[in-house]
Amino acid sequence: MSPVAFPIHRAAVLYGPKDIRIEDRPVWPPHYDHVQVAVKSTGLCGSDLHYYMDGRNGDFAIQNPLVLGHEAAGIVVSVGPGVKNLVPGQRVAIEAGVMCRQCNYCRSGRYNLCKSLWFASSAKTIPHHDGTLQDRMNHPSHVLHPLPDNCSFEAAALAEPLSVLIHASKRADLQQGQRVLVFGVGSIGILACALAKSYGAAQVAAVDINQQRLDFAKANGFASRTYCLPTVDKAKTTDEQLRRSRETIQRVLASFDTPDGYDVVFECTGAESCIQMSIHAAATGGKVMLVGMGSRNVMLPISAAALREVDIQGSFRYANTYPTALSLLASGKLQNVEKLVTHRLRLHETARAFDLLARGRDEQGNMVMKIMIAP
Amino acid sequence: MSPVAFPIHRAAVLYGPKDIRIEDRPVWPPHYDHVQVAVKSTGLCGSDLHYYMDGRNGDFAIQNPLVLGHEAAGIVVSVGPGVKNLVPGQRVAIEAGVMCRQCNYCRSGRYNLCKSLWFASSAKTIPHHDGTLQDRMNHPSHVLHPLPDNCSFEAAALAEPLSVLIHASKRADLQQGQRVLVFGVGSIGILACALAKSYGAAQVAAVDINQQRLDFAKANGFASRTYCLPTVDKAKTTDEQLRRSRETIQRVLASFDTPDGYDVVFECTGAESCIQMSIHAAATGGKVMLVGMGSRNVMLPISAAALREVDIQGSFRYANTYPTALSLLASGKLQNVEKLVTHRLRLHETARAFDLLARGRDEQGNMVMKIMIAP
Amino acid sequence: MSPVAFPIHRAAVLYGPKDIRIEDRPVWPPHYDHVQVAVKSTGLCGSDLHYYMDGRNGDFAIQNPLVLGHEAAGIVVSVGPGVKNLVPGQRVAIEAGVMCRQCNYCRSGRYNLCKSLWFASSAKTIPHHDGTLQDRMNHPSHVLHPLPDNCSFEAAALAEPLSVLIHASKRADLQQGQRVLVFGVGSIGILACALAKSYGAAQVAAVDINQQRLDFAKANGFASRTYCLPTVDKAKTTDEQLRRSRETIQRVLASFDTPDGYDVVFECTGAESCIQMSIHAAATGGKVMLVGMGSRNVMLPISAAALREVDIQGSFRYANTYPTALSLLASGKLQNVEKLVTHRLRLHETARAFDLLARGRDEQGNMVMKIMIAP
Amino acid sequence: MSPVAFPIHRAAVLYGPKDIRIEDRPVWPPHYDHVQVAVKSTGLCGSDLHYYMDGRNGDFAIQNPLVLGHEAAGIVVSVGPGVKNLVPGQRVAIEAGVMCRQCNYCRSGRYNLCKSLWFASSAKTIPHHDGTLQDRMNHPSHVLHPLPDNCSFEAAALAEPLSVLIHASKRADLQQGQRVLVFGVGSIGILACALAKSYGAAQVAAVDINQQRLDFAKANGFASRTYCLPTVDKAKTTDEQLRRSRETIQRVLASFDTPDGYDVVFECTGAESCIQMSIHAAATGGKVMLVGMGSRNVMLPISAAALREVDIQGSFRYANTYPTALSLLASGKLQNVEKLVTHRLRLHETARAFDLLARGRDEQGNMVMKIMIAP
Repeated sequence: MSPVAFPIHRAAVLYGPKDIRIEDRPVWPPHYDHVQVAVKSTGLCGSDLHYYMDGRNGDFAIQNPLVLGHEAAGIVVSVGPGVKNLVPGQRVAIEAGVMCRQCNYCRSGRYNLCKSLWFASSAKTIPHHDGTLQDRMNHPSHVLHPLPDNCSFEAAALAEPLSVLIHASKRADLQQGQRVLVFGVGSIGILACALAKSYGAAQVAAVDINQQRLDFAKANGFASRTYCLPTVDKAKTTDEQLRRSRETIQRVLASFDTPDGYDVVFECTGAESCIQMSIHAAATGGKVMLVGMGSRNVMLPISAAALREVDIQGSFRYANTYPTALSLLASGKLQNVEKLVTHRLRLHETARAFDLLARGRDEQGNMVMKIMIAP
Repeated sequence: MSPVAFPIHRAAVLYGPKDIRIEDRPVWPPHYDHVQVAVKSTGLCGSDLHYYMDGRNGDFAIQNPLVLGHEAAGIVVSVGPGVKNLVPGQRVAIEAGVMCRQCNYCRSGRYNLCKSLWFASSAKTIPHHDGTLQDRMNHPSHVLHPLPDNCSFEAAALAEPLSVLIHASKRADLQQGQRVLVFGVGSIGILACALAKSYGAAQVAAVDINQQRLDFAKANGFASRTYCLPTVDKAKTTDEQLRRSRETIQRVLASFDTPDGYDVVFECTGAESCIQMSIHAAATGGKVMLVGMGSRNVMLPISAAALREVDIQGSFRYANTYPTALSLLASGKLQNVEKLVTHRLRLHETARAFDLLARGRDEQGNMVMKIMIAP
Repeated sequence: MSPVAFPIHRAAVLYGPKDIRIEDRPVWPPHYDHVQVAVKSTGLCGSDLHYYMDGRNGDFAIQNPLVLGHEAAGIVVSVGPGVKNLVPGQRVAIEAGVMCRQCNYCRSGRYNLCKSLWFASSAKTIPHHDGTLQDRMNHPSHVLHPLPDNCSFEAAALAEPLSVLIHASKRADLQQGQRVLVFGVGSIGILACALAKSYGAAQVAAVDINQQRLDFAKANGFASRTYCLPTVDKAKTTDEQLRRSRETIQRVLASFDTPDGYDVVFECTGAESCIQMSIHAAATGGKVMLVGMGSRNVMLPISAAALREVDIQGSFRYANTYPTALSLLASGKLQNVEKLVTHRLRLHETARAFDLLARGRDEQGNMVMKIMIAP
Repeated sequence: MSPVAFPIHRAAVLYGPKDIRIEDRPVWPPHYDHVQVAVKSTGLCGSDLHYYMDGRNGDFAIQNPLVLGHEAAGIVVSVGPGVKNLVPGQRVAIEAGVMCRQCNYCRSGRYNLCKSLWFASSAKTIPHHDGTLQDRMNHPSHVLHPLPDNCSFEAAALAEPLSVLIHASKRADLQQGQRVLVFGVGSIGILACALAKSYGAAQVAAVDINQQRLDFAKANGFASRTYCLPTVDKAKTTDEQLRRSRETIQRVLASFDTPDGYDVVFECTGAESCIQMSIHAAATGGKVMLVGMGSRNVMLPISAAALREVDIQGSFRYANTYPTALSLLASGKLQNVEKLVTHRLRLHETARAFDLLARGRDEQGNMVMKIMIAP
């Protein structure tokens, strides 16, 4: 049986740094418990961008051509044997990570920590699993989530980054009435603000080095207070760096009229100085939730955390968040969240989309936040 | 030294069932750690009404003349020796319960369970402590809470019943994205709906026997789905009663298009049949939170709860809720909550106010929800 | 292909009340992801006994011949395709319940609430799945748990009832230093005592109607205080019954010198009067954990629970408990737990074993607690 | 009225580094809500030692002569006005920290974070509050805890350091069946081991640089596995230091046959390299609990924590732990804990006691763990 017997679909395949090729590929029928989905919307993410720019994301370099994309939604085209929960024509969000469902992490509800998990669009497992920047993909049925009726494909694609924050908020035990500070208001930080607001935060404040982003956050009601950090030369010594971070954040807290600090700090930049500031920005007994990761090793004012019982927690992806994320997105409770999507392009424009994302501004000088790719 | 040396203020004093007298009383200066407050707004509550109608509330009959009222806010007039956190002129909400701060309950943050707690306006402790239906009262400084600038006295008076729900929601570990059902939409039930919505509930549904209240709940956006229970003759046997409750709630869940039930059920009626229905209305793994208390003993379908891990929890008053309550009320996040206050009367009209509350409708046929008394 | 091509094994098959037949059956090779286990030890349980005596357990009557037994351990004989975590010769405990691993309950760590779960030896699902009272059984690999080296088959068979208590203790958030009361010291109640002790309970007390069991509990250090409830005629009215329960438990608490009650009460009898007493026996702010289920509907002193924030919780089977249970059993920390096994019989004596269990005493007058069946 | 009208007692007063003077002081009668206690046993602690050696502890230098000591128990001699919970003759443990009972931290059960808390024997607040190294002291009644009958003064003095671990264990949500690793087995580390064991830890392992301490831990059953870290020259670069920590802990985990790491790691040394190792030693999803504080700023492999959801938490003193600590110490469940007390001296020998503690060995070459001072 020759492969031409199968229909053809198109995929945006990464062959190396800045080398994305649009290819025709045969469509295999879905295996047992798998579903074929026509992808309708994929959001581009910072980790996709790392692969595109450098051919790698942190420790993981691509070993073979890879389709990126993992923030996506689409329509069920056909279902493989054994699939009972989905039928063709159904609209679904695609959860890119596929857990083993056998290990203790999976069984106790923390499947994001599963050591056998593979993730579509990641180069961590070999061979890699292709992501969603293609017209069609086969994916296990148990990680496809039906969309509420009033949830668009584009909104559903946001369920992935929103899941990151839902998971982080649960780990931080975010409660109504708490004060929340967000470092870094790119897409993830904006979603942190929006989610905190929907939880009933008493105050949501944001810090960034980009005034335009902060203006966006304030104008759209994501944050009520903002502070633009000045860019400065690198400190000469560690002590100098730590002192600067401490003094800077004190100015920030004063300007926010919140000298006692914040109950929960979402650190979405991964920058060493911001992680340092996060600790001083947290109220005694509060939490620092590390959402952005960029620094492998960081000099931390650890006694300022430990003696004040400020917990330093990381969050890695998400588990059991999609239903909540989709329900939230459909409910309209994340006010203005649709404004995050600043640009929409076609699959064959994927390379250009990544270039836009890398620059942060389009040709008209407009800010680039989230780019959505449609077939 | 004769008492006329002190200024005079007015109090509405309950001498027995339906016997409220407006009296002039001397104003004593506040003791050590106490503050004198000019009361500006007091909401009337169901337990006040019990005292007014029957001279008792459950097990507790008045033993001496008693000033009712415990949902209140006012202005600091003077402070006693040792008071550092308040100054004259400050606007405060009055937390009626005063805990011992010594026992294990107090020290571990559950002061509502303190066995030495006394409560202004309650006949439980002897001699009783007078409540807030008076022009002036002295009260310990540590249970007075400064108002946010944009929080009116009337809104602040609602901090008390709202605290009941904040406490109940914390005990039920209410989470964003959960489905919430409320039995009974009097003032407490309406606040349960409003709070659940502000938590980001996926759905808020309400059940009552009063169509007018349900219409109020729906028209003001407190509940998106409502069901009016028919009034029926009392069941002849316990089995018949249990069967009816089970069948009725199944109809309710079907009409709400939520056959799997609700994550959290707030039972605010105290009626036996509603408590029974609550258990069947909770989803497997969900919670029934008993907020209303009226039935001392109840026949419960206990295996329907236990085998499905539906927790049956009560909540008694509140602890550490006032700051959150005031912040929520000031934030405007409890949409339409001000509509709960349907009637406003003067202190000398207190008896008439209770009569209105008892009838549930005013002379024009308008529904009575919350009545506020101002001096 | 004729069935005689397969080896033969023996099974104890229930055909109806008190009708157990020892049968030869062919041994099928294990399917994909399944493992064949030579069963070495099976403990008999109260639900097995119900099936044996009445052909039913609560709502579930046997629809076809059924092999009972679900507290078991054995040796892996062969593994089906796809099995990676086990090899022939390995010693394993058999978790009888098999969850779907797809639904929200499974994914969030509460697989005991999975609505598609089937349970070996139960008549709930049709056709039934056979239990462990046979020489060989095929079972999915993901519910087989390797034994620690120093854990015997018999100890491993106890991992099932112990799991019930580990799960219940987690749900009750049992903490070191708490006072624990156990109603009913059959096998489950004894394990509740042993587990509470291993948690570092400040006091473990036990109540039963059987002095011999209480003596066993005390002599072996499971409980430090015991109380034998007198057997009395049934109360004529509900009020009388409630009054009696209240007065009785007050006597019990006084005799235990613990008038304020217990932080956690494990109710392991399922009797209405004991459930009533449990509520009064719990300290303010404490928990009643319903482990034994026997009464479908119960008259409860609900205000005595709700107003004191005594939570009424049920626990249904267990989830993610086997590794902890096996580790505990291997560690020797459950002192004297091996004494629970009072009788050991062979598979062909299964009927006699159930008769012994039903009588509660053997021919020599010795108490029957846990009976183990070996091939 | 001349001071000689009061009885005289003796105190060991620190005037500066290594300058302790035994003084006669008048005994003032206890104030309102205060109790006079005859101190019977005081344990010496590392922070006392810092004051003794350097006249300061971290940021806090003594501003006036100070009586050290805060691990103590004694007998009530007399009670001031208002004291209801204690009578002369009662045996009590002395909780050195006195919280405000007004602030949100106090009211919500986290009084250790109270910003107005003062602590007997600390130089943080000015004027300082004297500690327990004196015959008599007046102390507020609400921080005195009656001793169980079978709890000696010496055991009760251990309730203070044990409280540190109880608090840390609660914050780490330590559960039965978990694997626990302890860095540093001085008094605090030994208590961490003992407590973990009493919680039912599956494994307790210990790491130190002192083989004698590790032998003590193993011989007395506190830890089942131990590893003695080699002392090495300081690494030349941060990267080298981080690499060494990572490689060393991998060898430790291998030697402990626990390559996946530990559920909870108690870091009791405060050394930078141990904090680094703690992160790698924690299992994915586990916790690092910083108990020892010594390094103000630490270079941390933060992505190794965040991406594996290893929480980094500090614990500061304790709240609401004394009753549990005393009950545990009285119960005998902390096996061999009394062996911690290696030396007993008199009040007039306080200076010599600190010298012993500083050296870590006595004249006979015996290890010094905990020294108790009696009057």
